[in-house]
Amino acid sequence: MKRFVLPPDCQGEGEITLSGKDFHYLCRVRRLKGGDSVPAMLADGRRFVLVLTEKGTNTCRARVEPEPEESRENQSRPEEIAPIELYQAVPKGRVFDDVVRRCVEAGVTRIVPVYTEFTVGGAARDTAERQRREERLQRVARSAAEQCGAVRLPEIAQAIELSQIPSFDSNTEAAFFLHQEPLAEWSLHRYLEASIRKVVLAVGPEGGFSQRELRLLEHKGFRPVYLGPQVLRTENAAFFAVAAIRVLLLERESWTTRKK
Amino acid sequence: MKRFVLPPDCQGEGEITLSGKDFHYLCRVRRLKGGDSVPAMLADGRRFVLVLTEKGTNTCRARVEPEPEESRENQSRPEEIAPIELYQAVPKGRVFDDVVRRCVEAGVTRIVPVYTEFTVGGAARDTAERQRREERLQRVARSAAEQCGAVRLPEIAQAIELSQIPSFDSNTEAAFFLHQEPLAEWSLHRYLEASIRKVVLAVGPEGGFSQRELRLLEHKGFRPVYLGPQVLRTENAAFFAVAAIRVLLLERESWTTRKK
Repeated sequence: MKRFVLPPDCQGEGEITLSGKDFHYLCRVRRLKGGDSVPAMLADGRRFVLVLTEKGTNTCRARVEPEPEESRENQSRPEEIAPIELYQAVPKGRVFDDVVRRCVEAGVTRIVPVYTEFTVGGAARDTAERQRREERLQRVARSAAEQCGAVRLPEIAQAIELSQIPSFDSNTEAAFFLHQEPLAEWSLHRYLEASIRKVVLAVGPEGGFSQRELRLLEHKGFRPVYLGPQVLRTENAAFFAVAAIRVLLLERESWTTRKK
Repeated sequence: MKRFVLPPDCQGEGEITLSGKDFHYLCRVRRLKGGDSVPAMLADGRRFVLVLTEKGTNTCRARVEPEPEESRENQSRPEEIAPIELYQAVPKGRVFDDVVRRCVEAGVTRIVPVYTEFTVGGAARDTAERQRREERLQRVARSAAEQCGAVRLPEIAQAIELSQIPSFDSNTEAAFFLHQEPLAEWSLHRYLEASIRKVVLAVGPEGGFSQRELRLLEHKGFRPVYLGPQVLRTENAAFFAVAAIRVLLLERESWTTRKK
């Protein structure tokens, strides 16, 4: 069932006015009438019911109500597994839309677009173009979340240069980047063995990270991980890694408490 | 680097004649001239070099040669992890192309299209339509393998009805289907803990498998597995599961030999 993602200025229960695309979606696409309701959610995953109260020509009013008990019991338990942040090198053209759409489904909590040495399309680094791209990615994320009934809406952060990437503390955070060769002494299982607060994944552009960038990432607390000989396209790399990470975290208890 | 997938009738080293799409690709798209060579592979992943010897107007002759030592040393080691077979419910329209493309990248070894109760488009079950679809999927698999430098070309089997699905032996094969609820007592790690010969994954259509079909699958040796609360679209479900399976198998030693 499709779940409407409430606009960012909505705080939860109460009356709101909707216009633009939200109005279009609810009143034109879904053809809601006064009194009709749809399942709704805030970006953090909290669930509500949206009841249409007043329908104008370009705007509508609606009431955000708590979700009834019975449907709350049926919903998936809020997740207890660690959040996953993705630092994704900006790919060519519309490939980023695909990355975002898939990461919404896979349950990524935050996506940070990153400009790297081998990023194609340097022109797109200007401010106006960046802003347009961020807004588009936010729309893509939102519509993907609505379409697939996502558990939560990931945050699309402002794009940064790779040199601006923060440092991570390997005691509480597992930060890594994908490596094409089995160089790493540690496996993904080893990285995720200790109880961690957050998983951070850096995915390079088509040409990969440069040697200088790899050193920088390691300096910031990122470690290389090899996920097999398969050659993944940019739009699939993050999703592949996130799928593996999610299942390892979900089943953590089953493999960390094993006997020999 | 793009690697040409040799036609199915080619056995390895020797002279071959190429026509149709192969001729078009090599002589028109890649614009090879006599004496030029391209990296090539057989469907099973064995690597060669293809040298163009004669160029006609609609066909060309070429010599399949062993790959030089130095490039063989650089190539990924042949995989030792268990093969993964996918029984995929036929999705609507061109979605299957996407599934095949991604599974080629993820390293699936065999894909069997399956007709189920909730499969949309029953008309497509007639013989001619089936054959056209199989041929298209084979072309998609081949071009995906060439584009991404896949480790091997998966076999696209003839479509079957779900009732024709073979039985699997849980002692040597890990067969399972995805389940939306955490019902299964066993985790993916538990299923893959013992040394197995093959992994078999069944993925349902948009509406899922019917209750009757789930019972049939369990009767055939399939077991349910829950991979988390995320809601995956048909085109992403197999890829997500295969990613997790591949990493678990790749790192098997690191988590099965762990002490408490």
